[in-house]
Amino acid sequence: MASKTDLTAVNTIRALAVDTVGKANSGHPGAPMGMAPVAHILWSRHLNYSSKNSKWFNRDRFVLSNGHACALQYVMLHLAGYKVSMDDLKSFRQVDSITPGHPEVGVTDGIEVTTGPLGQGISNAVGLAIAQAHMGAVFNKEGFPLVTNHTYAFMGDGCLQEGVSGEACSLAGHLKLSNLIAIYDDNKITIDGDTAVSFTENVEQRYKSYGWNVLHVENGDDDFEAIDAAITEAKKNTNGPTMINLKTKIGYGSLKAGSHDVHGAPLKKDDIAQMKTKFGFNPEETFAVPQEVTDLYAKIGDKGAKAEAEWNELFNKYKQEYPKEAAELERRIEGRLPDGWEKALPVYKIDDPAIASRKLSETVITKIVEVLPEVVVGSADLTGSNLTRWKTAEDFQHPSTGLGSYQGRYFRYGVREHAMEAICNGLAAYGGIIPLCSTFLNFVSYAAGAVRLSALSHLRVITVATHDSIGLGEDGPTHQPVETAAWLRALPNLAFWRPADGNETSAAYLTSILSPHTPSVLALSRQNLPQLENSSIEKATKGGYVVHESENADVTLVSTGSEVGLCVEAAQQLKSKGITSRVVSIPSFEVFGAQDRDYKLSVLPSGHPILSVEAYSTFGWGQLSHDHFGLKAWGASGPYAKVYEKYELTPAGIAKRAEKVVAFYKKRGQPLFSPLISALDDISE
Amino acid sequence: MASKTDLTAVNTIRALAVDTVGKANSGHPGAPMGMAPVAHILWSRHLNYSSKNSKWFNRDRFVLSNGHACALQYVMLHLAGYKVSMDDLKSFRQVDSITPGHPEVGVTDGIEVTTGPLGQGISNAVGLAIAQAHMGAVFNKEGFPLVTNHTYAFMGDGCLQEGVSGEACSLAGHLKLSNLIAIYDDNKITIDGDTAVSFTENVEQRYKSYGWNVLHVENGDDDFEAIDAAITEAKKNTNGPTMINLKTKIGYGSLKAGSHDVHGAPLKKDDIAQMKTKFGFNPEETFAVPQEVTDLYAKIGDKGAKAEAEWNELFNKYKQEYPKEAAELERRIEGRLPDGWEKALPVYKIDDPAIASRKLSETVITKIVEVLPEVVVGSADLTGSNLTRWKTAEDFQHPSTGLGSYQGRYFRYGVREHAMEAICNGLAAYGGIIPLCSTFLNFVSYAAGAVRLSALSHLRVITVATHDSIGLGEDGPTHQPVETAAWLRALPNLAFWRPADGNETSAAYLTSILSPHTPSVLALSRQNLPQLENSSIEKATKGGYVVHESENADVTLVSTGSEVGLCVEAAQQLKSKGITSRVVSIPSFEVFGAQDRDYKLSVLPSGHPILSVEAYSTFGWGQLSHDHFGLKAWGASGPYAKVYEKYELTPAGIAKRAEKVVAFYKKRGQPLFSPLISALDDISE
Ligand SMILES: [Ca+2]
Ligand SMILES: [Ca+2]
Repeated sequence: MASKTDLTAVNTIRALAVDTVGKANSGHPGAPMGMAPVAHILWSRHLNYSSKNSKWFNRDRFVLSNGHACALQYVMLHLAGYKVSMDDLKSFRQVDSITPGHPEVGVTDGIEVTTGPLGQGISNAVGLAIAQAHMGAVFNKEGFPLVTNHTYAFMGDGCLQEGVSGEACSLAGHLKLSNLIAIYDDNKITIDGDTAVSFTENVEQRYKSYGWNVLHVENGDDDFEAIDAAITEAKKNTNGPTMINLKTKIGYGSLKAGSHDVHGAPLKKDDIAQMKTKFGFNPEETFAVPQEVTDLYAKIGDKGAKAEAEWNELFNKYKQEYPKEAAELERRIEGRLPDGWEKALPVYKIDDPAIASRKLSETVITKIVEVLPEVVVGSADLTGSNLTRWKTAEDFQHPSTGLGSYQGRYFRYGVREHAMEAICNGLAAYGGIIPLCSTFLNFVSYAAGAVRLSALSHLRVITVATHDSIGLGEDGPTHQPVETAAWLRALPNLAFWRPADGNETSAAYLTSILSPHTPSVLALSRQNLPQLENSSIEKATKGGYVVHESENADVTLVSTGSEVGLCVEAAQQLKSKGITSRVVSIPSFEVFGAQDRDYKLSVLPSGHPILSVEAYSTFGWGQLSHDHFGLKAWGASGPYAKVYEKYELTPAGIAKRAEKVVAFYKKRGQPLFSPLISALDDISE
Repeated sequence: MASKTDLTAVNTIRALAVDTVGKANSGHPGAPMGMAPVAHILWSRHLNYSSKNSKWFNRDRFVLSNGHACALQYVMLHLAGYKVSMDDLKSFRQVDSITPGHPEVGVTDGIEVTTGPLGQGISNAVGLAIAQAHMGAVFNKEGFPLVTNHTYAFMGDGCLQEGVSGEACSLAGHLKLSNLIAIYDDNKITIDGDTAVSFTENVEQRYKSYGWNVLHVENGDDDFEAIDAAITEAKKNTNGPTMINLKTKIGYGSLKAGSHDVHGAPLKKDDIAQMKTKFGFNPEETFAVPQEVTDLYAKIGDKGAKAEAEWNELFNKYKQEYPKEAAELERRIEGRLPDGWEKALPVYKIDDPAIASRKLSETVITKIVEVLPEVVVGSADLTGSNLTRWKTAEDFQHPSTGLGSYQGRYFRYGVREHAMEAICNGLAAYGGIIPLCSTFLNFVSYAAGAVRLSALSHLRVITVATHDSIGLGEDGPTHQPVETAAWLRALPNLAFWRPADGNETSAAYLTSILSPHTPSVLALSRQNLPQLENSSIEKATKGGYVVHESENADVTLVSTGSEVGLCVEAAQQLKSKGITSRVVSIPSFEVFGAQDRDYKLSVLPSGHPILSVEAYSTFGWGQLSHDHFGLKAWGASGPYAKVYEKYELTPAGIAKRAEKVVAFYKKRGQPLFSPLISALDDISE
């Protein structure tokens, strides 16, 4: 039953959110004020959490998909006893505070995923729900419901308009994720004003079409018991996810409630005063929490701590009964990899046959899924092209489909690249899982919004991006990435790999898996690639190394992926013309960039010109090479060798340019320095 | 009534598509075979086209959203009499043919938009339909139905799974575009096999939720009359777009019909032979067209030519009655801009106040919409932040909403960035319209899939991308683009602009509008920017120029947008330390790159070091500067000036680095060459 304390708590949340935004003089008060009731009912009656240990594994996951409403989330974390102090609320949106303008995982205690870019949070929530379903299916035993948590997401109109959420929610319905409860803040307002200007679809009908349960709360402002009842019912559903359509008034309590004026700007002083007065609070006071609210949330905190203690007890019993499974669950929760797993990675010698790197990747996947049960793999409907499925794989599917089970480790994402990456962010954020996903490199761009959040959120999501260049051939320029590598290389905290042979492919996987806080994209060829004379997993893990060394070289050819082999051939042609060349492979700019200066300069030394060769835009090579050979524009449709010929990306075409470069700098006649040497080397920017 | 000729025609289409894919030994036969009936019925009975003039303005637009099925489209274009010969079909997927692996506008006569990346075509079709509705509303008069065409789109399961199509179709429903008819090839197969593995939503219900009319053809393989009836009914709808759910068998006629084996690989020889035999064709013959089919399509061609002639007659009468409107329509169809329109662009002097470039952009928009009626503008629910709406603007809305009309030139795209850009591709492809759209620069990434197609398709889509850096301040790193400029600069045939003041903003618009075959993205600041001492529209249209010149400079500071003003201040600080510096602004790398060599070298000359300054990843500056100052990682949430301070992106921080750079190269003591000078300058790659 809703009590006076509930109402006081809800109004406290509203006032705190308003004060938080007011103090910062920046932020979004409207949604926090409208969603205060559902936040309070959820956090005080349903959400299973232990605020003193925000990492408790079986906690319910809470996602604020409308991340701009984060004043609400910070207030809830504060009230619930997480490491978010009143001073933190007062530092909202200030540099180096733990309460940034949108929620960031790793910055604030209790934040599960980074949200704000609309549509991402709800899609992450689908990933979190899949993760629970999978971990539960793998580890739960009769009498040991160890992994049972729910995932709750709040979302606004913006989240629902974004395509990524449609993709993710369609898949969530297909997978019948009954552990997922999404609460839609149906306030009929977006930044442009009334949703009538652009968003008049029937959202409930759409979610029904996805196979979701749809519930409805007509008065989300005052009818606390209806909110409670809807959440209670949602938790009982076993046939799919639930969406609760919650009608609220944006900026409830403000004089401008119900208008977009309260969406993204602090309330005026007199408006705040009248609101507090109306709520029975002291209009002069800010950041006030009535004792009864403090007491209520202290009690809830105790309940959470008790729930965690009970879970620990259950887990101890599980340890007795299922010692192997318990050890494995602990290992996965802690993120420790099994000893010696990396021995599974294949090693190649120079006389091994030429193999496409997507095929090399298939071999790696087939090996590592045996030793790393935390690895789950999937494709955006390109399984047969990405070569990501191993022979014994079981699909992750609801058992009722007869197509797999929740224990399955192979994911059929459908043609939904953006949702796939956002779901993988959720899988990685949950813990105990290392997600690999795949599509063509060109279509990783469809998922740009989620990929940048993998990087910003420090999540180990590994993207297998095959058909990585004009080498895909006949599909043509609509499918040939030219600009994609530049984008991914410019993205902070993401390792873009373009392996040139078998050992480099193994190294790409090794480094990606050994980087728990960095996503990786592995660009892989459709066409066969020869094994390189000097490659090894160890060398390739440095991100760059010398494939072919020469004393007193006239030129270094530096390249990546499928063009390295062409450079090796070009070097032979150059030799016959009396030009001595070195060949360097840089499978990953980012990983190479992190090596020590001496090593890097040994790979790309001063003294002679460096020519880059890559079947992409040359944009960005200026930091590694003096001259750059690549694509000036788009690729073309045709058999791949013909396409390479069209652009002279052949041994002869490379040799021709290398000759030019050598002659040019000989003529200039002054010492040449490595482009790696910068005047700003010793300034830490 | 379906005749024997219809059946022969359908089987001819199937056989031709199979031969086309077979000859190329690459491509997708399954969907063409399954969709041959609907293609034939549409093209022979409904589609209004004049194949001898593929640019006839009132033609129906046909979009193959499942672009991988393009063998079908090329076959139809051939039969219908477009400039696609039998030899062109035989050159399918060969380098430099006009029949590439996916349809490309500008490459093949009769192709309206470039498709293949899934979900794009149907979203372009929404744009084409909006364009018709708008042009019709503006130019049609009582008794003069000049612009009345329909837009037809074919789409497969993949198109429907992609989020972009959901965004676009939700908006199409909202806008009640009854001129749009989408035909869904419901064949229950995707690359990963049966749609049961990932795509089990109720598509019809979803489209109903968007406000579409949904029709259903149970047997799309044989029931030609049902197909005809559905299209006939769809054309009668006046209350919104129509989706026809057409059940087909992928690869109809093949031994492997109904399986994903026929999706993306040529049929085997014996399979082709049995199919042709079954159809009553000579199994030995390839690329055969029975005379009755040739005759049928010749007759349809005549009908189309007659329709065009009648339209021309109508237009001639319209010219008499409405000479002004007729002249204006002709001007817009031909893409001629009104004389002197550019005089509307504001010009600034150095003592004008500092103004945010998003605000400068608002002024430009307000001025140009007066002189360029072909300019339509919209925002993805950020109107008040993007500052894209002018005071007298009318919204583009269905009149029944009371919120605007189809004559309206302001578009409320909702929070649907990807659909917005894809729709703008359709608007630009239609003709007579110059679309501007807007969001935060950070969220242009959500639309990456469509933006790359603007560039590949040579479409003049102008994206107003405000809040272009850490200068957006409090919203924090989730909203601060760091990598986006690198991506857009690496994209061929796209002009990325980052204007530094008023004249540069005017220049960015001037050049973007004067580039009919190139999309532009204008990155604009939230914060105020000072007017520069040496700027002019003319100079800025060169993409780069000297803002502050000095004889015998020790260093050039090269920068863009909001950091140019900081560099000017840094130059003053350096002067007081006895260091002479030049300041260069490069508002557009691409436009600057297209200038002649002498000019470029006058802007970034040899002789002294060049230091770049930009609040982005420094990736890509190596081609313009010797040393690079920017962001090593993500931005931060806080008041914008504090965020700039955190990264030392201040006049003092810039000056400190410039000093370092000057000292470093003095110590090296050898002539320094402009990074623009390349050994490969005279090789046309
Ligand atoms: Ca809303
Ligand atoms: Ca299909």
